[in-house]
Amino acid sequence: MSRMGERLILLAMPSIHAGAWRYPGADPGFQASFEQMAWFARTLEQGCFDGLFLPDTLAARAAPIETLVRGHSIVTLDPLTLLPALAAVTQHIGLIGTASTTYNEPYMLARRLASLDVISGGRAGWNLVTSSNPNEAANFGAEQHMEHGARYRRAREFCTVMDGLWESWDQDAFCRDADSGLYFDAEKMHVLDHHGPHFSVRGPLNVERPVQSRPVVVQAGASEAGRQIAAETAEVIFTYQTDKESAQQFYAEMQCRARAAGRQQALKIIPAVFVVWGETLAQAQEKRRRLDLLVDDASSLATLSIALGHDISHYDPHGPLPDIPESNASKSGRERVIRLARSEDLSIIALARRICGYQGLEMVGTAEMIADQMQLWLECGAADGFNIMFSHLPGGATEFVAQVVPELQQRGLLRLQYEGNTFRDNLGLRTPGPGYSRG
Amino acid sequence: MSRMGERLILLAMPSIHAGAWRYPGADPGFQASFEQMAWFARTLEQGCFDGLFLPDTLAARAAPIETLVRGHSIVTLDPLTLLPALAAVTQHIGLIGTASTTYNEPYMLARRLASLDVISGGRAGWNLVTSSNPNEAANFGAEQHMEHGARYRRAREFCTVMDGLWESWDQDAFCRDADSGLYFDAEKMHVLDHHGPHFSVRGPLNVERPVQSRPVVVQAGASEAGRQIAAETAEVIFTYQTDKESAQQFYAEMQCRARAAGRQQALKIIPAVFVVWGETLAQAQEKRRRLDLLVDDASSLATLSIALGHDISHYDPHGPLPDIPESNASKSGRERVIRLARSEDLSIIALARRICGYQGLEMVGTAEMIADQMQLWLECGAADGFNIMFSHLPGGATEFVAQVVPELQQRGLLRLQYEGNTFRDNLGLRTPGPGYSRG
Repeated sequence: MSRMGERLILLAMPSIHAGAWRYPGADPGFQASFEQMAWFARTLEQGCFDGLFLPDTLAARAAPIETLVRGHSIVTLDPLTLLPALAAVTQHIGLIGTASTTYNEPYMLARRLASLDVISGGRAGWNLVTSSNPNEAANFGAEQHMEHGARYRRAREFCTVMDGLWESWDQDAFCRDADSGLYFDAEKMHVLDHHGPHFSVRGPLNVERPVQSRPVVVQAGASEAGRQIAAETAEVIFTYQTDKESAQQFYAEMQCRARAAGRQQALKIIPAVFVVWGETLAQAQEKRRRLDLLVDDASSLATLSIALGHDISHYDPHGPLPDIPESNASKSGRERVIRLARSEDLSIIALARRICGYQGLEMVGTAEMIADQMQLWLECGAADGFNIMFSHLPGGATEFVAQVVPELQQRGLLRLQYEGNTFRDNLGLRTPGPGYSRG
Repeated sequence: MSRMGERLILLAMPSIHAGAWRYPGADPGFQASFEQMAWFARTLEQGCFDGLFLPDTLAARAAPIETLVRGHSIVTLDPLTLLPALAAVTQHIGLIGTASTTYNEPYMLARRLASLDVISGGRAGWNLVTSSNPNEAANFGAEQHMEHGARYRRAREFCTVMDGLWESWDQDAFCRDADSGLYFDAEKMHVLDHHGPHFSVRGPLNVERPVQSRPVVVQAGASEAGRQIAAETAEVIFTYQTDKESAQQFYAEMQCRARAAGRQQALKIIPAVFVVWGETLAQAQEKRRRLDLLVDDASSLATLSIALGHDISHYDPHGPLPDIPESNASKSGRERVIRLARSEDLSIIALARRICGYQGLEMVGTAEMIADQMQLWLECGAADGFNIMFSHLPGGATEFVAQVVPELQQRGLLRLQYEGNTFRDNLGLRTPGPGYSRG
C-alpha cells in the first residue's frame, strides 16, 4: 500500500513523560495553567497542527503517598472547561476533549460539545472513552467499575443518543423572523424520544445544531469491544502502536471493520508518538537519557502496578516480572506491558522506568530523521498522522514547530496554511448530511 | 435601616422579555451567539458590572408547537461551556453559571467550577439550583422529578461535597520542586472520603484549589427549603421581589436565617429587575409598550390564564378584565395581576401582553429615575444590588452603560474601576480561610 502525496494529520497533547516536568527549562505547572495551555494551542496553530488533544481521568491519580508527591499530573484542568477558553484565543486548531461515557449523561455532554462546536466555529472533537479506573468509580458512588462489556454497551447507546441529540435541529431551523414572529420552523425540529436499556432521553437539545453537524468523534479502544465501537462510531482512531508492522495490520483491520459496519468513509488512524528532537541524533538521544533519569523509581513501580492492574510492590524490583493474573485494567494495555517485559527480558524496575517514562512509539533524532519516520508510516499505510507528545513543555513544542514543521512542510507532508473552516474540513472528513442519525 | 454610602452590586443576564427578540435593532439570536455574548460580557465590564449571570434549564422549553415556534429562548449555549470562553476575552467581570444539583454529579461539577475559577483568575460563580421541571426529568431517564424535599436534601449534601472537594488542596500545596523531584506537599492534600445518603465521593479533586478558595455561591430558592439552604450555603441571593416592602421583609428574614445558621457574613441580596431606559419617561414608556406589542397574542393569553388560575380565552380580549373567581393559583400573584389591570385600566389583551412580556420588578424611565429607584432600594435595606435584564440586546445594554452607569457612578453607587482581583473581592465577600469546609 503506497500513499505518496498524502498529507499527515498532526495532533498534539501535553507531555506525558514522567520526568518531563523536571527537565531544564520545563514549566512544571504547564498543564494546570491556562496561560501556558493558551500559549500551547497558539503555538500548535502556528505550526499548522490539525488539533490539540486533551486526555482526561475523573480522579486524581492514586498511589502510595510517597510516590504520589513525585508525580506531575495529579492536577490539570477539566478538558471541556479549558477547551472553550482555548477556542476564544485561537482560530483554526481543532479542540479534542476526552469525556467518559461511563460517568456522564448524554444530554449534558451533547450540549457541552455542541456548545463548544458553536463557540469555536466548528472545531470541537470528542474523544469517547469508557472509565476503567477504580479511582474514578470511588468519586461517583460506585464500589466497583462496571465490567468491560457493560461499559461498552453503555458507550454504544450513549453515542446513539448523542447523534440523535445533535440532530435535534436542522442547520436552517432558525428563521428568527422578527416581522412574522416565527422563531423557528417546526418541521426542522426533531424530538429524539429515545428509550433504551441505559438511557431514556426525550430531547430536543436546547443548543443549535453543531457547526460540523457532528463534532469529530475520536476513539481509542484497543480491545475487541473497543475496536468494534470505534469502527461503528468514530472518525479518528487514536492508538498506541509501537511498531510499523503491527500498526499496518491494525490500520487495515480497522478500515475493514468500518466498511463491514457500513461506514462510508475511511477512518483516520493516528498513533501516539513521543518526539525528542535534537540538532544531531546524539543530542536527541542525550535528551531522552536525561529525561528518563529524572523519573522517580517509586513512581515508576506504582505506574507499573496500575498498568498491570496488579500490585507489584511485593516483588523484587530487580527480578523478572512474574505471571500477572487477569484484572479489571484495560486488557490490551496490560498485555502490551507484559509483552514488552518478555520481549526485552526487562527486570521489574527497568520495565517500570520505561513504562513510567514513556514506553510507546518514539521518534528521537533530527528534524530529517523524525520527518523520515513519519513519512514512512504514512506512506506504508501504518498511520494517517500522529498525536505528538513533546519531550518537555514549553521547549519541546517550540523546537518542533521551529525545526520539524518546516521540514514536513518542505516535503509536502504538512499544510502551509489551514485550508478549511472547520476541524472536519481540515481533517478531510465529510460533514454528515441532514438526518444522518436517523439512517 | 439606612445604608447611605453603600455601593450597588450590579449583575446582568440576557433579555427575558418575550417580545425583546423582535424589537427594532435587536439580534434575535443573541443568546445563542458566542460573538454577541462576548460583546455583552465586555460591555458589562466597561460598565463596571460585578458579574454576568447565566440562567439555565436542562431541556428545551415545552409548549404546544404553535406557541413554541414563537418563543425566543429554546436554544442557548451551555453556561459552563460559554463562561470559560468569556473568561478568555474579559479581565474583571464575575462569571456566574447556573448548574443543577439534581442532574449533576458533584465531582464533575466541582472540577468544572474549580477549572473556571483558575482559568478566569478567580471570577467563577455558581448559581445552585434544583431541577423542578418535568421536561428536564425526561432528558435524564426519570419518569418524574424528585419531590421537593428530596431535591433539597440532595442539594444540601451536594454542596457539602463541593466544598470538601474544593478544599482538596491548600493554596500552597504545589511546590513543584524540579531539583528534589517533589511535586506537592502531602500534608497539604486533603482526601474528602465522603459517604452520605446521596453521594459517596472519595476525592481529592484533580484540579488545584480555586483561586477564590470557593467560587461564589448564588442561590434563588424561594420556598421554605430553598430559603434555608440559601441561608446555610449561599453568599449571594438572587430573588424575584416585586415591591419594596416585601423585599425589605425578605432581606431581613434572610439575614436572620443566615445568622441563625452560624454564617459569619451578611448575604448579598440581589433582586431581578427589568430595566427600560428612555431619554424621557414618555419615551421609556413608549419603548415598553412597543415591546409588549411584540409579544405573541396566543402565548400572552395562555400566560395570563395561568397567572389567574382561570381560563380567560372565552372573554373579549379587547374588553376589560371581568371579576375573576378564587382559584388554585398563587394568591398573591393573582391579586397583583388583578391590581395591575384595575390600576392602569388595561384590556385583557394589554394585561396579557404585559404579564407575558415581563411581570416582575421593573424600572422604566430616565437614567435619573432608574438610579433613584435603585438607590432607594439599596438605602432602605430592600436590596444590595440588582440582576438586570435589559429591554433588548444589544441595544439595551449599550444604552444602560452609556446613560445609567455614569449616573450611578456620579452618585457613588457604582465603582469607577474594579478594585479587587477576584469576583469575591469586588463583591466585598471574604475569601474562606483554609479548612473552612472542615469546620
